[in-house]
Amino acid sequence: MDDRLNDSSSPVRGFASDNHAGVHPEILTALAAANEGHQPAYGDDPHTARLREVMRRHFGEQAETYPVFNGTGANVVGLQAMSERWSSVLCTESSHINVDECGAAEKVAGLKLTPIPTPDGKLTPELVDRYAWGWGDPHHPQPKIVSITQSTELGTVYTAEEIAALASCAHERGMLLHMDGARISNAAAALDLPLRAFTTDAGLDVLSYGGTKNGLMVAEAIVVLNPEAVQGIEFLRKMGMQLASKMRFLSAQLVALLDGDLWLRNATHANTMAQHLAHAVRAVPGVRITQPVQANAVFAIIPKDVADRLRKRYAFSTWDHRTGEVRFMCSFDTTEGDVAAFAAALADEMTA
Amino acid sequence: MDDRLNDSSSPVRGFASDNHAGVHPEILTALAAANEGHQPAYGDDPHTARLREVMRRHFGEQAETYPVFNGTGANVVGLQAMSERWSSVLCTESSHINVDECGAAEKVAGLKLTPIPTPDGKLTPELVDRYAWGWGDPHHPQPKIVSITQSTELGTVYTAEEIAALASCAHERGMLLHMDGARISNAAAALDLPLRAFTTDAGLDVLSYGGTKNGLMVAEAIVVLNPEAVQGIEFLRKMGMQLASKMRFLSAQLVALLDGDLWLRNATHANTMAQHLAHAVRAVPGVRITQPVQANAVFAIIPKDVADRLRKRYAFSTWDHRTGEVRFMCSFDTTEGDVAAFAAALADEMTA
Amino acid sequence: MDDRLNDSSSPVRGFASDNHAGVHPEILTALAAANEGHQPAYGDDPHTARLREVMRRHFGEQAETYPVFNGTGANVVGLQAMSERWSSVLCTESSHINVDECGAAEKVAGLKLTPIPTPDGKLTPELVDRYAWGWGDPHHPQPKIVSITQSTELGTVYTAEEIAALASCAHERGMLLHMDGARISNAAAALDLPLRAFTTDAGLDVLSYGGTKNGLMVAEAIVVLNPEAVQGIEFLRKMGMQLASKMRFLSAQLVALLDGDLWLRNATHANTMAQHLAHAVRAVPGVRITQPVQANAVFAIIPKDVADRLRKRYAFSTWDHRTGEVRFMCSFDTTEGDVAAFAAALADEMTA
Amino acid sequence: MDDRLNDSSSPVRGFASDNHAGVHPEILTALAAANEGHQPAYGDDPHTARLREVMRRHFGEQAETYPVFNGTGANVVGLQAMSERWSSVLCTESSHINVDECGAAEKVAGLKLTPIPTPDGKLTPELVDRYAWGWGDPHHPQPKIVSITQSTELGTVYTAEEIAALASCAHERGMLLHMDGARISNAAAALDLPLRAFTTDAGLDVLSYGGTKNGLMVAEAIVVLNPEAVQGIEFLRKMGMQLASKMRFLSAQLVALLDGDLWLRNATHANTMAQHLAHAVRAVPGVRITQPVQANAVFAIIPKDVADRLRKRYAFSTWDHRTGEVRFMCSFDTTEGDVAAFAAALADEMTA
Repeated sequence: MDDRLNDSSSPVRGFASDNHAGVHPEILTALAAANEGHQPAYGDDPHTARLREVMRRHFGEQAETYPVFNGTGANVVGLQAMSERWSSVLCTESSHINVDECGAAEKVAGLKLTPIPTPDGKLTPELVDRYAWGWGDPHHPQPKIVSITQSTELGTVYTAEEIAALASCAHERGMLLHMDGARISNAAAALDLPLRAFTTDAGLDVLSYGGTKNGLMVAEAIVVLNPEAVQGIEFLRKMGMQLASKMRFLSAQLVALLDGDLWLRNATHANTMAQHLAHAVRAVPGVRITQPVQANAVFAIIPKDVADRLRKRYAFSTWDHRTGEVRFMCSFDTTEGDVAAFAAALADEMTA
Repeated sequence: MDDRLNDSSSPVRGFASDNHAGVHPEILTALAAANEGHQPAYGDDPHTARLREVMRRHFGEQAETYPVFNGTGANVVGLQAMSERWSSVLCTESSHINVDECGAAEKVAGLKLTPIPTPDGKLTPELVDRYAWGWGDPHHPQPKIVSITQSTELGTVYTAEEIAALASCAHERGMLLHMDGARISNAAAALDLPLRAFTTDAGLDVLSYGGTKNGLMVAEAIVVLNPEAVQGIEFLRKMGMQLASKMRFLSAQLVALLDGDLWLRNATHANTMAQHLAHAVRAVPGVRITQPVQANAVFAIIPKDVADRLRKRYAFSTWDHRTGEVRFMCSFDTTEGDVAAFAAALADEMTA
Repeated sequence: MDDRLNDSSSPVRGFASDNHAGVHPEILTALAAANEGHQPAYGDDPHTARLREVMRRHFGEQAETYPVFNGTGANVVGLQAMSERWSSVLCTESSHINVDECGAAEKVAGLKLTPIPTPDGKLTPELVDRYAWGWGDPHHPQPKIVSITQSTELGTVYTAEEIAALASCAHERGMLLHMDGARISNAAAALDLPLRAFTTDAGLDVLSYGGTKNGLMVAEAIVVLNPEAVQGIEFLRKMGMQLASKMRFLSAQLVALLDGDLWLRNATHANTMAQHLAHAVRAVPGVRITQPVQANAVFAIIPKDVADRLRKRYAFSTWDHRTGEVRFMCSFDTTEGDVAAFAAALADEMTA
Repeated sequence: MDDRLNDSSSPVRGFASDNHAGVHPEILTALAAANEGHQPAYGDDPHTARLREVMRRHFGEQAETYPVFNGTGANVVGLQAMSERWSSVLCTESSHINVDECGAAEKVAGLKLTPIPTPDGKLTPELVDRYAWGWGDPHHPQPKIVSITQSTELGTVYTAEEIAALASCAHERGMLLHMDGARISNAAAALDLPLRAFTTDAGLDVLSYGGTKNGLMVAEAIVVLNPEAVQGIEFLRKMGMQLASKMRFLSAQLVALLDGDLWLRNATHANTMAQHLAHAVRAVPGVRITQPVQANAVFAIIPKDVADRLRKRYAFSTWDHRTGEVRFMCSFDTTEGDVAAFAAALADEMTA
């Protein structure tokens, strides 16, 4: 639901999406450094080899990493590699794969999604139990994957224990657990845990690792935590049009993000800005925050006329036209000044 | 057939593919310049607006430009936008869409390809006439698109007249003409013609414009020359996982390539190097060049043991295992020294 | 959800599904009569021509009829013909296309389904309004079709007014209305209306006409009520593997059903038997009927041990393992004796 | 290429296709006999159990049989069950799956076909060797299946030895052998061999068994000769819209054909008629037979004006508009009188 109603002429940093930000300067430096001579294409280069090692430090020695172009590509190729042609994927109704990828999962990968209504964007073992059925019945698409988003599309965060419970629930049923980690770094910062604590160690099978929303230019990665969970992923990545020829430039971005602590610095900052923003927004009479602010998003309900006026000053997203719910998103480059000015503008329009 | 047999430890510039080269320095400069503040995602940014204007200068006022990540993405999304669900696409047996995209056209886009054997990688109206049939018959996939590659996968180049004849042939049958222009700049340089002379002006409907092989980092574009030839391309691009969130960084690369003459400088240089290489290779006794050298590729047959030894010194591609045909590819950064050294090495191994 | 738990050795007429019945004798007679000499294949035969006329009598002069093999084929080909590649289909969570066709809509036809929870298997304009959104946004699959089932998978029936309201709601949004009419004859009998009163006259665009569950051997039909609502249906039918070569034998069945009143006799009888069964079941203490009995199905909750014992005597379907809900289905050949004996068996097991 | 140009008003038995014939009387009898009481749907019935046994007598104890509606369904579901998502299928350019199924293999099943030109509709190990390459290369769809048609679309027949050689060639490469047996009975009659001699015993993995062209109403079957060659076929059959609810009526037809010798009687008769027809046609000056007449088809070149006049009297198919090649097809009910009259008409028109 991102970005549909942005004011594209907004002259200042807005709160529409973490992908309105540019690229962290360290990433540009890394790209320039990677531009040395000829290197084999399609991943047989030293940067991609290095990335594999960096990822193993974060996710364990068994982890396999496949850089791709974008989050939709990571999700679709990863889910396809985890499934048979007759499989279905349980996900939330509000999940990005269900509502924001133009049906790619179904139309490109031949997946069947089973979207499940939730109040907070989070699946539970109880919901899985209710929606996963029909085993062995040829009339029914066979539930194979539970897909969660961390942090969720609603700005909430699963605890490590909640993820472990979902992994157990899935594995007991012969299913696998997939994570859309477009904002996984924000979740790690929120949980104050290393990445592997709520992924590999919680039993996660395959991860879409998100880099672009956390300061990269264009790079995401499928990280296979359980190699037995996937088949043919190198073919599927090419078939899914996600195999970069000059792959070193994708890998170099991810290495620059993950080799040191840039991933965590960026995410922690964005989360902190969201807390400040939530604090400031809560102080505005008449504005109601609708979801726990656990990562870098703030959801709130404001009157439609206020939203219309505010949008002329700042970019942000309408989340639900019927209720007037809007989303304010902080990014790695949001400043305290941005937050203060935006909150003041909101207060101003609320009383206009 | 690119790059399968490269020696990935090759320490020097090789001849395996034009995507083993890095990025032209002017592109890195443009990327850094584009990294200013917040900009709307998904194409509503000034760089993408600028790109549309630049492309219109090259291809005419009616041209619509849709940046994508890679050539396979450009081909598949473009062809899908041109076709109905029951359409088929005539192409050569050696075309990239047929043999080098892991079946993406069929498997992701639901296209039916009709691959046609040719000696030189070029379709003709006679071949189209022979393979396009079955109109109105529900048993037969309906021929809708003629897809050509310029310059071809075999290093040959269509003349503007040849393309115009194919466009007429297609249009007379209610079909459309598509060009995989992964190396279109090399063709323009070879023909010494502006881009539009053998595209828009020749009746081409949709073009996959190739940037990565000509010095970009990661950017290609679907250029719609005939807006009536496509449907739903913005949805199909997202569905095809080819919609970049921080699109300004794709567009900025293409602008830097095409606004001035960088596209032509790079391509002309690569072609010139290929001519030098062909000249040098022809002088080596026992080596036979198998295709006219019209763009930046040299195809030749060399003994298998020579290939094996030479490969330890330089990266290049085996094209046909049965015949011993190999491909030497020049890129924007190939030097006269590279050519001389490589030709010497070849001569050396031929007499070893 | 049909038939998964049937006892296949049941020696008597059961209540598992209306497709456990055989073929009405008049249909066998019609098949024998159609077996005369050579006739063109694939629908250019007099029986198929006749069928078109018969269907126009029922559905209006604009109706186009395309016989297919089964209901899944009718649904999938019909929906595909109504949609663009980027379209989505709103349907109920309990709809056959969502849970009982092994994902064919998504996996074969590239459709995106948006399943909507309902208590009674019926969509409403309010639900359509809530789930149809994102027009023009390339991130969101575009809502194009509202698909309803008549009578529903839960044995309920839409009134003509309810269907007209859904058609208006769909058309106002640029969408189309599709009906899975696997049991449309039962609905007509329940409503005591001619077929066109709640289809063509209510604004329905495309119908899957169901014959097999109403006494045919193997024949269904896509009936296009609004020819502007579909594209390429003859190609899609072949592509969807639903084009019968000896089509006269499919058409002859449908003609025999629909030319006279066999369709209505069969359906009225099945509905009447369901009313008798509901009456008898309601009289059994401890059994709760869970849905209005409006067509030929009775849904009830019975204790699991009773279901297990009863199943050894009669075939029927478990609908919901968690709640103990079961489904009893009457067919054209169910007798009053069958109903009485089954109700007695149920009462017997409830007190065992 | 069947049947496109038939004269649908032809009052007599023609030679357009073996599916213009009706149903053998023994089949109608079997259908009536199968219409007894309730039986479980979807294959859990005694007729389908019986069919499995009958097929095992013909094809060996390991054979698994899955009835489907039509030949396209048998081919597509069978090939899909044999392949991974990234697989390709080698077939002839003239194969039914390539030119006569509206692209179903690609569009519905996501297969990649590699069509190979042949003079006689037959693949050879040499052709497989030439077109099967690129193993392990993610850019290239992975060759997995060799698909042959027996008897071929050009009326020729593979010997048992030729099939065994293709099976060995496929298996040596980790590939599988598939047979489109739409006219397998005609091949058996031509070879004077039991069915298993050139299928199971030759190393074939999966067969599309054709019944409709040999006297059935509507029934074909996927026969899995090597159970290790397939995955998920029951799901794929449902997903592929090929699972009949009242399956007993499909199975009963196949039992009636194969339990005794009806399959062989019908096919032998059709072949004999084709020999008579070829003999008569060869005697007509100016007509050239273009393919060996080995099964029930006669291919010949006749002048276009003769074809046009003859078509007003008899239905037959144009095979190649450019050359004037036509196809005359004999069926189980073709009579010696039909052949004599048709040959006389041809001779008559040749001299008109």
